[in-house]
Amino acid sequence: MTLAEIEALDHSDPLHHKRAEFDIPEGLIYLDGNSLGVLPRAVSGHVGNVVKQQWGHDLIRSWNLHGWVDLPIRVGAKIAGLIGAEADEVVAADSTSVNLFKVLLAALRLRPERRVIVSEIDNFPTDLYIAQGVSHLLGGYELRFVRKDQLEDALDDRTAVLMLTEVDYRTGYLYDMARLTQLAHQKGALAIWDLAHSAGAFPVHLNRHQADFAVGCGYKYLNGGPGAPAFLFVPRRHQQAAFPFLSGWMGHQAPFAFVPEYVAAEDIRRLTVGTPGVLSMSALDAALEVFADVNMEEVRQKSLQLTDLFIELMGPMAARYGLELVTPTEHARRGSQVSYRHPEGYAVMQALISQGVIGDFRAPDIMRFGFTPLYLRFADVWAAVERLDQVMRQELWRDPRYSQRAKVT
Amino acid sequence: MTLAEIEALDHSDPLHHKRAEFDIPEGLIYLDGNSLGVLPRAVSGHVGNVVKQQWGHDLIRSWNLHGWVDLPIRVGAKIAGLIGAEADEVVAADSTSVNLFKVLLAALRLRPERRVIVSEIDNFPTDLYIAQGVSHLLGGYELRFVRKDQLEDALDDRTAVLMLTEVDYRTGYLYDMARLTQLAHQKGALAIWDLAHSAGAFPVHLNRHQADFAVGCGYKYLNGGPGAPAFLFVPRRHQQAAFPFLSGWMGHQAPFAFVPEYVAAEDIRRLTVGTPGVLSMSALDAALEVFADVNMEEVRQKSLQLTDLFIELMGPMAARYGLELVTPTEHARRGSQVSYRHPEGYAVMQALISQGVIGDFRAPDIMRFGFTPLYLRFADVWAAVERLDQVMRQELWRDPRYSQRAKVT
Repeated sequence: MTLAEIEALDHSDPLHHKRAEFDIPEGLIYLDGNSLGVLPRAVSGHVGNVVKQQWGHDLIRSWNLHGWVDLPIRVGAKIAGLIGAEADEVVAADSTSVNLFKVLLAALRLRPERRVIVSEIDNFPTDLYIAQGVSHLLGGYELRFVRKDQLEDALDDRTAVLMLTEVDYRTGYLYDMARLTQLAHQKGALAIWDLAHSAGAFPVHLNRHQADFAVGCGYKYLNGGPGAPAFLFVPRRHQQAAFPFLSGWMGHQAPFAFVPEYVAAEDIRRLTVGTPGVLSMSALDAALEVFADVNMEEVRQKSLQLTDLFIELMGPMAARYGLELVTPTEHARRGSQVSYRHPEGYAVMQALISQGVIGDFRAPDIMRFGFTPLYLRFADVWAAVERLDQVMRQELWRDPRYSQRAKVT
Repeated sequence: MTLAEIEALDHSDPLHHKRAEFDIPEGLIYLDGNSLGVLPRAVSGHVGNVVKQQWGHDLIRSWNLHGWVDLPIRVGAKIAGLIGAEADEVVAADSTSVNLFKVLLAALRLRPERRVIVSEIDNFPTDLYIAQGVSHLLGGYELRFVRKDQLEDALDDRTAVLMLTEVDYRTGYLYDMARLTQLAHQKGALAIWDLAHSAGAFPVHLNRHQADFAVGCGYKYLNGGPGAPAFLFVPRRHQQAAFPFLSGWMGHQAPFAFVPEYVAAEDIRRLTVGTPGVLSMSALDAALEVFADVNMEEVRQKSLQLTDLFIELMGPMAARYGLELVTPTEHARRGSQVSYRHPEGYAVMQALISQGVIGDFRAPDIMRFGFTPLYLRFADVWAAVERLDQVMRQELWRDPRYSQRAKVT
């Protein structure tokens, strides 16, 4: 494809106007929205107002006046619309890890006779760590962490829970949620989905696929800001039975009655715990407004076009310099990122960043490129490949500065 | 005392200059810093910078560039100085409730043969709820929630943990941390302290009194903003043995190695879980700067002067209108708040708020007045009592508007 043809894609892109709703540093090509989404323009004004007016001026009255107390529910309802859930099935709260802990405990209690948790060995580590913590806590659980191709065989009639992240954070591999949930159900197990790399990236259909629980992240494709509150999903059919072992006052039926006995709220509030982080959650609340007029099917279509284009343009260079594509070429199995293995991947990525193209690196040798259709242009893909070609051709990555590992990779 | 004498107290107050570091709405007398601290002036600029520069411009690079990854440790170190802990014994994370869950599980594991958790029936409900959740989770625990005067008898050689909030959120009663911790230790139990109404209000001496664990709140006397991150304390002597059952990636020895096996960090980081909420935590970080040049003994002295003055000025009115003081007059047993019972307490407080004096109400009949020495003047105490006198004398609280309960009281 020529640059002119690529620019034509931008002109006809139905999402082209959305880029103006984000604050993107001049000249930067940001392919790391799968790690930290860029700043939506509406956020800084809103956060400033929450700090100065709501906190600074209205103070404690804001719990009622500005509805702080319902913020987790309001933000949850916005996310619900992006992931195929009802508005009252999602709540924003805590971190993804803490939320997984909550729903995993709730799920295990629904399968008290079963003692096996199945996941994939390449799942995002915190998910595996949470399962390990739960297993230490409860004792007697078998953690069956297997390869992708072993998952189906790993499910049996002792399996309590299948727990997967829908998109593999390293490779961008997209699981078949429908099929795996069905397989789990056929064995009598429950399916918990981590949507860290799904929510906001493409349409998710939790209820259509009968997912039992889900958790996800506010700061990647939802652009909620660094360490934004996470969310959790419990379908109506499980809400009465989802026991809140992490039982804090915000999950109480009547938090402001201040009674000593815990009685869980009837609804999804029961899986909230402490006082919501109003500042961070307000940022996420404002960030989600960019999705208000967005058709997620269009987002998906553009995401596949962007990643197709990237893979196509990368082809010759990948062959020449030994960059191994690890992301599925099949659309149905691809999330919204593309990854390559290279033995010098860390240094290559650092050199590329120095050229104004930000992706990231995941041990041991994976370079990740995330594609966020709301603010990326096709021309950005072209320019990113051009600059990576320069890094490889001129061997810029050999500069010793680029092999010095930072604290966070 | 005359108003002139009271104004003289303000002139000679060594903390008088600190008020200028806070943004306080003109004319408002804010006696609710024990529920939500006011906005320190430095916060909004800092949060604006974190949003626009660190997130918006520097994006993912900020994890290293602006040290986001160490923010929980840096903020924890600032809090440590206010509560008698070493810098490496405190970390900012999650909510108070979630932190209590973590340290309670860790504490119980240190006393595996014991099956009793002792607390006080008037402890802040979320603390009791967390204990109930833990008991459901682990099974076989006796929750011995007793009255204050029964606590000593409730401790026995089956007690694993004594769990108390140092200041009673309703009455302002201040526990003798030294004595109760010692009593717990004499029985072989561990002592967990909730510092929600202590940290930032007066000097706390966790290590001097050999506290085993502590948690606390960032949004009351620490002024970190609505729902600010909380903190937890684990003394060095327990850090190696404090098992992190809520085991997320931030507590891993090497979070960015992305290995599938959880190995707990050697230090207090092991009790962190998910990605820190950078925006909320940055607000708390900036808010804590107001304490940098503050002597907490001076804070305590002024706090007692303020509450003494309030109790003294309230004396005649309390007798006349049946306001029953429930806060100890003894200094050693008083936190930084004063509370009165009144059958129409809710309406009285609403009427008082309409007169520009903000306190709050706690079921069933308690009016709370919090005194934050860093930004309250003695003249504010005088004016607050004047206005309350007007509310009572003119029976303003009888206006039906004031008895309509809001969602959050």
